[in-house]
Amino acid sequence: MPNAPVTTTLTLSSKNYSSWSLRGWLLARFAGLPFEEVLLSPDDPGAKAEMLLLAPSILVPCLRHQGVQVWDTLAIAEYLNEVKPKAGLLPADRAARAHCRAICGEMHSGFTSLRSALPMNLKGHFKGYKVWSRAQADIDHVLAIWQDCLGRYGGPFLFGEQPCMADAMYAPVVTRLRTYDVKVKNAACAAYCDTIASLPEMKEWTAAALLEPEAIDELEVEF
Amino acid sequence: MPNAPVTTTLTLSSKNYSSWSLRGWLLARFAGLPFEEVLLSPDDPGAKAEMLLLAPSILVPCLRHQGVQVWDTLAIAEYLNEVKPKAGLLPADRAARAHCRAICGEMHSGFTSLRSALPMNLKGHFKGYKVWSRAQADIDHVLAIWQDCLGRYGGPFLFGEQPCMADAMYAPVVTRLRTYDVKVKNAACAAYCDTIASLPEMKEWTAAALLEPEAIDELEVEF
Repeated sequence: MPNAPVTTTLTLSSKNYSSWSLRGWLLARFAGLPFEEVLLSPDDPGAKAEMLLLAPSILVPCLRHQGVQVWDTLAIAEYLNEVKPKAGLLPADRAARAHCRAICGEMHSGFTSLRSALPMNLKGHFKGYKVWSRAQADIDHVLAIWQDCLGRYGGPFLFGEQPCMADAMYAPVVTRLRTYDVKVKNAACAAYCDTIASLPEMKEWTAAALLEPEAIDELEVEF
Repeated sequence: MPNAPVTTTLTLSSKNYSSWSLRGWLLARFAGLPFEEVLLSPDDPGAKAEMLLLAPSILVPCLRHQGVQVWDTLAIAEYLNEVKPKAGLLPADRAARAHCRAICGEMHSGFTSLRSALPMNLKGHFKGYKVWSRAQADIDHVLAIWQDCLGRYGGPFLFGEQPCMADAMYAPVVTRLRTYDVKVKNAACAAYCDTIASLPEMKEWTAAALLEPEAIDELEVEF
């Protein structure tokens, strides 16, 4: 008898542009749950809405597993943590776990200036890019969060030895700092950026993003 | 010896205007965790930022319990669910729990038009208020979510017999529909609004909001 088909799927949109897709994908990889990717066309309304930064979409990312359908990145993270409790998506210590969820929540609902002014674009590199003040304030806040976590839990990841939910949530910021040529002066934060960029998962995702055809020629960003 | 002091605190801002404060407060009440309220002055930068709808603040709501500090409403909900697992803040069934977290995530990061155009204001009543199209689209989406949940889990609350995390997350919307005179045609959704408004916790919060002095005379909303 052949192997049973993999029925777990993760719906994604652009690997170059979709930061929420990257987060969901990293979470599933960190959890160690095998899945098949379902790539939405960039013309799909759900994919468009997400890439236009209006909102994380109900469609992207979306995990289907054993008859359960979960959308929203944080809900996917909590679901994966329940299904794969030993993967360490959340820290084992209660206080650290609460801290992790709090900074994940900040990324989920905040940093709108950073997200709108410096959208994820793995193919791009904008040397000397001028970051406006509100986006810079968001960046400063992110760096303060990272510095605090790296100091408190010892690195190299935000909550210690292994990548967790928070690293998946903040990974797109690492790519943005590189795309938009933002200098990271703090040594611990700079080392953290290298750690994330060097993850095999990030290399695999980035390689796929660079090969992605440029299908969206009218990405009209609305605010 | 006198009773030990209650060391659990929940930091809130305005009871009239702060929807995130209401959510955090309802979550702690639904969980059955005794706490003392710490009310931030409306002049506090954290309170202002939250009420200006720029972001759920790191300061409001913020739960301090047994040496653990948790901010962000969803992180507080998950923390309370861990501390009081029998309170039913999350549905017992895995698929329903994933669904609950998904719609809580939608409220947490989305519905920005509804949140900015129809801010919570328990003292206000704007008869015949004209809702602009994007806010109406958000309202329609909320009502679709409610209708789906009430049909699927049988009501009277979103996930069945008792109030849970999702009811706390959507409760401010119920108040907004009333404040801005939005008609709810769907019978199940209208009954749900009555159910939420009739909760003893909502009555207690609303009574306190109505007594709140009007300290903010320059609430300059920026977008």
